[in-house]
Amino acid sequence: MRNFRLVLEYDGTDFRGFQRQPRLRTVQGVLEERFSRLLGEPIKVIGAGRTDAGVHAAGQVVNFHTTRPVSAANLAEILNRALPDDVKVQRGDEVPESFHARRSACSRTYRYVIVERDAPSPLLGRFALVLPERIDAARVAEAARGLVGRHDFRAFQAAGSKTKTTERTLLRLECERARDRVTITAEADSFLYQMVRLVVSSLLQVSRGRMAAEELWAVLAAGDRLRLPTPAPACGLCLMQVSYDFPGPGGRRERRTG
Amino acid sequence: MRNFRLVLEYDGTDFRGFQRQPRLRTVQGVLEERFSRLLGEPIKVIGAGRTDAGVHAAGQVVNFHTTRPVSAANLAEILNRALPDDVKVQRGDEVPESFHARRSACSRTYRYVIVERDAPSPLLGRFALVLPERIDAARVAEAARGLVGRHDFRAFQAAGSKTKTTERTLLRLECERARDRVTITAEADSFLYQMVRLVVSSLLQVSRGRMAAEELWAVLAAGDRLRLPTPAPACGLCLMQVSYDFPGPGGRRERRTG
Repeated sequence: MRNFRLVLEYDGTDFRGFQRQPRLRTVQGVLEERFSRLLGEPIKVIGAGRTDAGVHAAGQVVNFHTTRPVSAANLAEILNRALPDDVKVQRGDEVPESFHARRSACSRTYRYVIVERDAPSPLLGRFALVLPERIDAARVAEAARGLVGRHDFRAFQAAGSKTKTTERTLLRLECERARDRVTITAEADSFLYQMVRLVVSSLLQVSRGRMAAEELWAVLAAGDRLRLPTPAPACGLCLMQVSYDFPGPGGRRERRTG
Repeated sequence: MRNFRLVLEYDGTDFRGFQRQPRLRTVQGVLEERFSRLLGEPIKVIGAGRTDAGVHAAGQVVNFHTTRPVSAANLAEILNRALPDDVKVQRGDEVPESFHARRSACSRTYRYVIVERDAPSPLLGRFALVLPERIDAARVAEAARGLVGRHDFRAFQAAGSKTKTTERTLLRLECERARDRVTITAEADSFLYQMVRLVVSSLLQVSRGRMAAEELWAVLAAGDRLRLPTPAPACGLCLMQVSYDFPGPGGRRERRTG
């Protein structure tokens, strides 16, 4: 069995998230259906990040095994011909059989974009949260710093989630402004379900002065989900990159291949 | 009768252009239907630019007359509640009764965006032309300069168009690069049908070395449509601004109100 790794870009608007679900259009579902038909054998696709309904990706990483004589050279081009316009392969390469897009990943980077505009924006609103308010980026950045590190993030998890552990290492949580565009970048070993969107909605409350930074940190320490606002809308969120620390096909160790 | 001017933003993807057509979803059709229902009288909407199917707008200008006691203060907000997500009012104001969005306009500015990428991009391809090639922006800019000015642009008009005159003044035609993004900006008193997209597809041929700048200029001089390539795809095009030289509500003369 050969193993191929793909870097994917998708517009999450018309997908019910990454993970396959019966009768719903999901990224995994579309990939498995199209690849299986193209290769003439059942293909199982493993994704690095289970992005939620409406969340986009610029650097999702998946892998799949096949017995077919596929060449890595024009793999992206061939697969793209079988894929719809809203999900496309950016790069493809062959990886050792043990490579697993999710388990081999050492970190994921998400970006959340907010655009400050008085009116709704049909051109920007598909890939950003458009808000008629001024974000206090300095205050957000300051509050964000208190969340970085290894913590039990159970407060920042959608109600009803099941995971073995809610401990995660938030490697980076930054807030930057460029004119009317505010970008929050979050990198972690992995994220809990809806964690980025709950972090963003909480930081927006801090920006508005409705929650002090110290209050946010206390919520983290207490694990008290009920004191947080509802998650920020999915449209502003994008999975930017998945990083690996894994021997590549040539045996050299790779970092930031996503 | 009072007269209101609106600046509109729309995602042209799911519209069959601006102009109303029977049984097709167009920007004008949606506006007239929703405004008529909202105001309880038949509303006729006049647009500055008749954008083609799939073309976007960040600064389309329209006006409409009404007998209803509408306030300009929260006009945008009220109208937006009646509009779908892909077309929204950015600003609204009351103008003299004689203001006509199309006839009063003194210039229109369009922007065409090309992104250089090896693979198709679901995140960028909705609002840009994604091309797996390197654009020679300097060569394009040089060829573009030869088109600026008052000319008979009949070569740069879709076959079968009907207009009284094909003379237009191209005030500006610029090509700029920012990393992998090439932007062509065109400003004219008005444009012929598909003129910007024919100019862009021709300039791309110049970039590729398939047409010399002198050849392009000769096509303009000869008015020979048959020597031009098919128009560039609609998705890369956006109507950015409409400029007026018209007394505003306060009597002061305005410029660049779109």
